[in-house]
Amino acid sequence: MTELKDQVSKGTDGFLGVPALRQSASGAIVALAAPSWIERRALRKLLTLMGNPPVRFVLWNGEHVSASASPECRRVLIHDRRTLWQLVINPDLHFGDAYSRGALDIEGDLTGFLEVINRARRDASRLSPLLSALLSRRNRARPNTLAGSRSNIHHHYNLGNEFFQLWLDEEMVYTCAYFPTTTLTLEQAQFAKLDYVCRKLRLQPGDTVIEAGCGWGALARYMAREYGVKVRAFNLSAEQVRYARERAAAEGLGRNVEYIEDDYRNISGQCDVFVSIGMLEHVGRDNYRNLGGIIDRCLAPAGRGLIHSIGRDQPCPMNAWIERRVFPGSYPPTLREMMDIFEPWGFSVLDVENLRLHYAKTLEHWLGRFEARQDEVRERFDEDFVRAWRLYLAGSMAGFTTGWLQLFQVVFTRPGSNKIPWTRDHLYAHRT
Amino acid sequence: MTELKDQVSKGTDGFLGVPALRQSASGAIVALAAPSWIERRALRKLLTLMGNPPVRFVLWNGEHVSASASPECRRVLIHDRRTLWQLVINPDLHFGDAYSRGALDIEGDLTGFLEVINRARRDASRLSPLLSALLSRRNRARPNTLAGSRSNIHHHYNLGNEFFQLWLDEEMVYTCAYFPTTTLTLEQAQFAKLDYVCRKLRLQPGDTVIEAGCGWGALARYMAREYGVKVRAFNLSAEQVRYARERAAAEGLGRNVEYIEDDYRNISGQCDVFVSIGMLEHVGRDNYRNLGGIIDRCLAPAGRGLIHSIGRDQPCPMNAWIERRVFPGSYPPTLREMMDIFEPWGFSVLDVENLRLHYAKTLEHWLGRFEARQDEVRERFDEDFVRAWRLYLAGSMAGFTTGWLQLFQVVFTRPGSNKIPWTRDHLYAHRT
Repeated sequence: MTELKDQVSKGTDGFLGVPALRQSASGAIVALAAPSWIERRALRKLLTLMGNPPVRFVLWNGEHVSASASPECRRVLIHDRRTLWQLVINPDLHFGDAYSRGALDIEGDLTGFLEVINRARRDASRLSPLLSALLSRRNRARPNTLAGSRSNIHHHYNLGNEFFQLWLDEEMVYTCAYFPTTTLTLEQAQFAKLDYVCRKLRLQPGDTVIEAGCGWGALARYMAREYGVKVRAFNLSAEQVRYARERAAAEGLGRNVEYIEDDYRNISGQCDVFVSIGMLEHVGRDNYRNLGGIIDRCLAPAGRGLIHSIGRDQPCPMNAWIERRVFPGSYPPTLREMMDIFEPWGFSVLDVENLRLHYAKTLEHWLGRFEARQDEVRERFDEDFVRAWRLYLAGSMAGFTTGWLQLFQVVFTRPGSNKIPWTRDHLYAHRT
Repeated sequence: MTELKDQVSKGTDGFLGVPALRQSASGAIVALAAPSWIERRALRKLLTLMGNPPVRFVLWNGEHVSASASPECRRVLIHDRRTLWQLVINPDLHFGDAYSRGALDIEGDLTGFLEVINRARRDASRLSPLLSALLSRRNRARPNTLAGSRSNIHHHYNLGNEFFQLWLDEEMVYTCAYFPTTTLTLEQAQFAKLDYVCRKLRLQPGDTVIEAGCGWGALARYMAREYGVKVRAFNLSAEQVRYARERAAAEGLGRNVEYIEDDYRNISGQCDVFVSIGMLEHVGRDNYRNLGGIIDRCLAPAGRGLIHSIGRDQPCPMNAWIERRVFPGSYPPTLREMMDIFEPWGFSVLDVENLRLHYAKTLEHWLGRFEARQDEVRERFDEDFVRAWRLYLAGSMAGFTTGWLQLFQVVFTRPGSNKIPWTRDHLYAHRT
């Protein structure tokens, strides 16, 4: 009976040629009817819209639907009829939901599969933008009003510090690391990133810094400790702020680092340096100009700043499943859209760097560490949560490896300020 | 009589307290009436619109008008009534014309004066964008149709190679140089720039390169000679193309460098690398998307490119005098506007660098060399031409030192190409 239940819950028996079974609402085991010609046709249409990736849908009764006969095809196991129709109707949203609840499985390497899908979709969107738009139905991000942002941020970042501690580095840096060489450990690469950002900002002892969206506070602590600056760091997540404060106190940095649980829109006071690492994704497209206005209000006459954000080559809504289930309200901007922060206020952009492959590498580390601790995650949450987070991490990694996602670091300064570096040599002449 | 004629033509005797004199159309020497209260008031209004710079207008009869009583005021000598009214009506256009024909003089360092003006205007535009807009009346750039571009380019670049040879470096590079250290000679800094661009493009022997807007061909020759690539370089200026061809032939580079006298819109064929240094300023705002389409048509799947252009922090028409008298059809874009080249075609921006202080340094060299050869220029053209070019070079230098102008180098690649550098270290580890 346990075996039968396993079969039913996974719904994979159809592959063995046995009629598919399913547990009904009443608890009875029922056989699933074979897929109809309409269902097979709908799946083939979906493959066409996806740019005919080398993918084979394997249905609950063992039947196959694919765009190519290649034996290289990656197999997607669809365990029931409802999942098939959900995929056909809104693949971007329901692929993630179905995978999370185990109604759909991917054979082999998940990241590799998602890379194959991304590449096919890019080619399809070049050939037929209209069909492609049909596929990725516009997902309207949840609004980032003051209350909306608080709720959006709470959704993700208040899952519990202990959860993130399972697989992040020791400093709890939850943004793209910087790998001067690819063999660095995650810990080393996160420190390298923190220092790279400080070098780009040309921090001097005594500088005052405002950080918008400080996570668990690693950058603020690093800046104060290594560069002797005073940091006021803002964050909406109560859990993160509590952790950051405790840690700064324990490290004796309390005098130079202040963590403030508040929205970036409420930032006040003056600073020499404005920095924001991985917050812009949560700001929302309509608020970039306002964010620039806040920087304009804060920044000293020769002030400078850096914005680090996930981005895009072309405008595109966030993947519906990520936006709904993982990061409500999130939107990665294009460089042109990011200019809404700077241009209306006349800030001068000095340097833009795209570090997307570094984010892919960071995610590879996170995914590996997450998988190694999955039993503890499962115990804390459940299997669906483990699967959802695996998909989110693997999907993000595939996003960066295939160039669906970018990572922009933009360095800017007050217009006309000549307190700017003569060249970028100093970024690569490492401190001794 | 010669002395009197000098006095009259310069019209500066008024400063000595003697009634101002002027030569009438009939050739008679007539005294200029003293400025009226309306004229003094109009000049004071002009100073207000300019943000009250520390400037003193000194009129033909020796009267002064200034916004401040500071003895630090820079003196602008206005030699006649017509010039006063032209300045009041359209200062951006007529300042340059009046300076060129000698109807207006600036005491002391010209670049320093223009810097003072730029800084005051920036402050004024922050305080009162509307008043500021009134001052810099919209100048509509001449259209860059196929015929228009040919005429626009001819206007500037066909002044004669011998003229530019008087004050450019030996390779005849007429774009921003790169000074790894500020003590480099202009020759060294232009070579440093050529090599920096090649490193940013990661040229490999055998690569095919298309260059749009090649000037006198220095970059194409350098690429072929130093990196073993094959270059097809496009340019609308017949004089420049002739020079470039002769020089490539003399250097034995004819097999690997082809100079084509044609518009960038007629570029055809494939390439691994697309590069354009200092052409975008002449392309015109409405044509950026088309330029991107041409790159999209040419570039290989893992192709990469670089666009180098004068730019702005905020959209603003080109100074009317520069656009009408020096560079017809020119417009320096903001970074956001430049994204029209890349975003519609999904190109991925990897790196943006702002090198405006390097252009200021380049112009300092050009201006010094131009002044040293001014007698030869005067002989070739006339005094008005010398004064116009002095103003153009000094004004451009002041534009870059005060941040009215930027210099952007944008490196891009095909979307999703992972043949991209892991870090930017290679740009600063110089070739041996």
